[in-house]
Amino acid sequence: MKGLFLSFEGSDASGKSTQIGLLKDWLEAQGIHPLVTREPGGTAIGERIRSILLDRGSREMLPVTEALLYAASRAQHVGQVIRPALEEGRVVITDRFVDSSIAYQGYGRKLGRVAEEINAPAVDGVMPDLTILLVVDPGDMRRRRSAGEEDRIEAEGLAFQSAVREGFLQIAEKEKERFLVIDGRQPVDVIAEEIRRAVAALAGLNYEQ
Amino acid sequence: MKGLFLSFEGSDASGKSTQIGLLKDWLEAQGIHPLVTREPGGTAIGERIRSILLDRGSREMLPVTEALLYAASRAQHVGQVIRPALEEGRVVITDRFVDSSIAYQGYGRKLGRVAEEINAPAVDGVMPDLTILLVVDPGDMRRRRSAGEEDRIEAEGLAFQSAVREGFLQIAEKEKERFLVIDGRQPVDVIAEEIRRAVAALAGLNYEQ
Repeated sequence: MKGLFLSFEGSDASGKSTQIGLLKDWLEAQGIHPLVTREPGGTAIGERIRSILLDRGSREMLPVTEALLYAASRAQHVGQVIRPALEEGRVVITDRFVDSSIAYQGYGRKLGRVAEEINAPAVDGVMPDLTILLVVDPGDMRRRRSAGEEDRIEAEGLAFQSAVREGFLQIAEKEKERFLVIDGRQPVDVIAEEIRRAVAALAGLNYEQ
Repeated sequence: MKGLFLSFEGSDASGKSTQIGLLKDWLEAQGIHPLVTREPGGTAIGERIRSILLDRGSREMLPVTEALLYAASRAQHVGQVIRPALEEGRVVITDRFVDSSIAYQGYGRKLGRVAEEINAPAVDGVMPDLTILLVVDPGDMRRRRSAGEEDRIEAEGLAFQSAVREGFLQIAEKEKERFLVIDGRQPVDVIAEEIRRAVAALAGLNYEQ
């Protein structure tokens, strides 16, 4: 495919949204208009699935149900949005993609390989060219939000969040060439520069600080 | 597991609901109180998934998304309702189960084996002891409903409905010992009697017409 596919991964409140906004602004200054999207969601059907997934009323949701719902949202996102945009040659930036399912459902919910198997038909071979993983300490992350604001996944305890963090690091270790792992505790500008440098190299753009 | 698990399968308007109601009444007359449930749905989360699946506004839904959503609803149904009831020794009657996904998504949407793979973790080994398949002609079926009443799946054309019917027949052919295939064009009482006889044999009940 002609386009460039970038995913941002990490815990909630790891700074993904801020960095996606900065990358988008910088790309636009270079005359490139990226498609910015997110998971779960990214389509009308996906947003309806998102509302079931994140609703704190869905407490009785089983891990397998959760994994299948994330995968359903992803299948629609890939087929309706991501693949067509990449085929048109666009730069696509997504806030979360399949690595989140491996980390959250595979490691966090302990579904292991079942999480990968469920996601294979959803992704259907469309994998990011570059995945930017922002790593923060689970304890730091929780301090940023008050309990009332948290969705169903964010409301999980520290042991769950630590397992997810460990999951992300293990996936990154296995797929070193796809991942850019960044210490999310660094200043916003330092992180943004590191991301620009990597994206510039991939996209064949000049980058001078 | 100690209970008895019965599923009803067939096209929409094949008479499943009528026969489920008659079987339930008969079982209750024998002192057995079955749990009657349905798919998609059967749980609060499943009913929310059902509303996305059947909404005629969800026209852009892709086959893989559809298969994953049905499987998500099923995973929740099995884990939260069916398995616990069977472990308590109850008779569980469901209006549709995994065979519907193989017929509708595997055959109707042409997903083939992907439909089976997606459903394996959802079913998690909980398969019906007896599946009652009511076979009607797709043309007859469509005449029973007016176009305005149809949900997204029912609104599919005759070619789709014929592929689904063929799918059901092929699954039944492969798993002869699990299936009771019934000509749904017969009188309601004749069908009901055939079902009672099979259930009585399985449940060790006396049955005289």
